[in-house]
Parts: sequence; structure tokens; C-alpha cells
Amino acid sequence: MKLYDASRAPNPRRLRIFLAEKQIEVPRVEIDIGAEGARTPDFLRINPLGQLPVLELDDGSRIADSLAICRYFEASQPEPVLFGTTPEEIGRTEQWNRHAELELFIPVSLTFRHGNPRVAHRFTQVPGVADHMREHALKTLNWFDRELSGRAYLAGDRFSIADITALVAIDFGKVAGIRLGPSWPSLVRWHGEVSARPSVAAAGT
Amino acid sequence: MKLYDASRAPNPRRLRIFLAEKQIEVPRVEIDIGAEGARTPDFLRINPLGQLPVLELDDGSRIADSLAICRYFEASQPEPVLFGTTPEEIGRTEQWNRHAELELFIPVSLTFRHGNPRVAHRFTQVPGVADHMREHALKTLNWFDRELSGRAYLAGDRFSIADITALVAIDFGKVAGIRLGPSWPSLVRWHGEVSARPSVAAAGT
Repeated sequence: MKLYDASRAPNPRRLRIFLAEKQIEVPRVEIDIGAEGARTPDFLRINPLGQLPVLELDDGSRIADSLAICRYFEASQPEPVLFGTTPEEIGRTEQWNRHAELELFIPVSLTFRHGNPRVAHRFTQVPGVADHMREHALKTLNWFDRELSGRAYLAGDRFSIADITALVAIDFGKVAGIRLGPSWPSLVRWHGEVSARPSVAAAGT
Repeated sequence: MKLYDASRAPNPRRLRIFLAEKQIEVPRVEIDIGAEGARTPDFLRINPLGQLPVLELDDGSRIADSLAICRYFEASQPEPVLFGTTPEEIGRTEQWNRHAELELFIPVSLTFRHGNPRVAHRFTQVPGVADHMREHALKTLNWFDRELSGRAYLAGDRFSIADITALVAIDFGKVAGIRLGPSWPSLVRWHGEVSARPSVAAAGT
């Protein structure tokens, strides 16, 4: 088994935090996502989307997508549980992970892709999208701050994949001009606690 | 238990197909998403995102988001399995459901939101986004057609949530000017087979 990884990209970081929480070690192959991103002819044969991470199993078959790989490992090594245990907890964890993904991670990514001049050669940039998506992300942060005033973690009392997704999205937000500040006290409290977990240090930035 | 539903919206349809596959019946409350969408003050108290569907459990707590509700029911009534059984199948099903969601459902939705004059009063429309996202969706359809030339369903030999997500996205594409045609023979074959399932008829359009 091996993991195609990229040390500086957000989706690979999400998976590395998840694996560190479970204390799972997988041999890693670092892919250089420099000027071209991962869209080189060689890597497109591994993943036609040109995205990382990709897990290669011992039979040579591959699972692409960070969350799909997380679910593979959650099923093969359930403890510590990061997607919930009871039907209600499973549903609620998926709800908050989806909110973190659809209302924060994707808006932050689109702010970066459409707004950062350093990636203008890699992505078609449509004027106006970066501002539109940044506004969307900021609204989500307002909402998450209110939610986190009433509980420890996004999906409830237990740390979960939803917190990993939100943490990675927020930290990635720096390259899109989005930073936490004192107007979001509950989010700052949560971000400090989650960032202090050993898994986050182990996964790198 | 009750389900806040909207008979003409794609995410509620995805959940209705899923429930029909499992032969689960839940009392439904139809929410009128006419001129205002679901963003009325009354409904925003039920879901601050103003989105459907929402499942209300017997203790009054709620699970929002179509896929989160699907996962709640997959955990409480596993058969027939729609998210996979073995770790590898679970990973692969999530991979293809994520591809169907991120590379098709969301681009189709953004084409609709940013390009359809009938919803200009509900969404901020950024010029250029609809064309950009339509092109993204069409590239995904090219790719899915190639993939489906080699297997029965998106995630493998078994019908899964990934097929439901892709079907709903493609059918929703009509309002965004995206329609299947003879240049995608494998996709047309797959679409015909999936559309003929009793669950799809039971769920309505």
C-alpha cells in the first residue's frame, strides 16, 4: 500500500491529520505540485482528475479523494471513531462535515483558485468569483462561531472528521485572505484546541 | 419522525430515491420553494441554511443535508446496501459519489444559480460563472461516459448512492441547458437503466 501525497495542499493535509488520529502509517510518495500542479502526464495516469491524495492498494487498485480514503480506513480500523457510531451521530457528523466542505472548504478553494495571481496559469479565473466566494466563506464563519458557542466540536461533544475539514479549510483560507480574528471568539477557542492536537502537529502544515 | 421535503428540488429527490430503494417511508411535510425558495423566516428556524431536505427525529432534533440523512438511514437499516460493505467498496463508493457531487452536481447547480434568469432574485449571479461551470459539467460527462463503457455502475458492479447523485445531477442539468445525447453512448445506456428503477418512479421528478 502507498499514498500519493502533497505536503502543502489542503486535501492531503486533511487525510494526514485523519491518519495521525488513528495512528495509521502508510508509505508516502510525495508528488511535486509546483508550477504545473499534479496535472503532469505521469500523474494523470494515476488520477485522471490530477488531484491528490490517492491511495494505492496492494493489488494495484486505487482510491482517489481524501474523504474516500478516510472512509476506507474508518471501515478497516474503526477506532478512534471519526465518522460517528450510532445512526444519529453518523448522520450528524456527515451533516457538519458536509457543511464544512460545501459552505467553507469549497468557497475557500474557489476564492484561492479564482483570486490568487500565482495560480492564474493553472486555473481559468472568472472575475468576481473570488469576492463572491470569500463572502460566502465569511458568512459560514459567522455561523460556525455561533454554533461553537454552544458545544465543544462542530458535530457535538466528540472530535470528528467535520473538525478536521473545517480546520484545514480555515488554515488554507490564509492564502485566500481569510483569517480568524476576535470577532469570532468561539471559533478562535475551537481552532486553538483543535490545532493543539498531536495529530495536527504530526500532519504538518 | 418527519421529513421536510420539496418535490421539485434535486437534493430532496436524491433522498427520496434513496429511501425508495430501501423501502423506507417517512411522513413528509412539503415546503413551498416558490418565489422565495425555502428562505422564509419560519423555515430558517428549522434550517438556518434555508435548504431542504431536513429530517426531524422523534426527540425533535434534526439532521439537515440529503447525504447526511441517507447515512442516518444506511446505518439504521443497512439493506439494501447503498454506500458499500467492505472497506474497499466503501472507499470506492465514496470516491465516485464525491466525483458525482463535486465534479457534476455542484457545477450543474452553479450553472443554474448563476445563469437562470428565473432565480436572479434569489441568488447573486456573477457573470461568467454559468459558462465556466457548464464547461466543467460537460467535461465530467465526457469522463463518466468513458468510465461507464467499462462497468455497469459508477462505483462498480453494484448500484450505489453514486449513481443516485449522478442521475439527479444530470436530470437537474436540463434547467441549466445540459442534456445527454448520442455522443455519450455509455452514459445514455447507464441513464436509461438507472432511470428505469422502481425507486426513481416512486420518488417523482
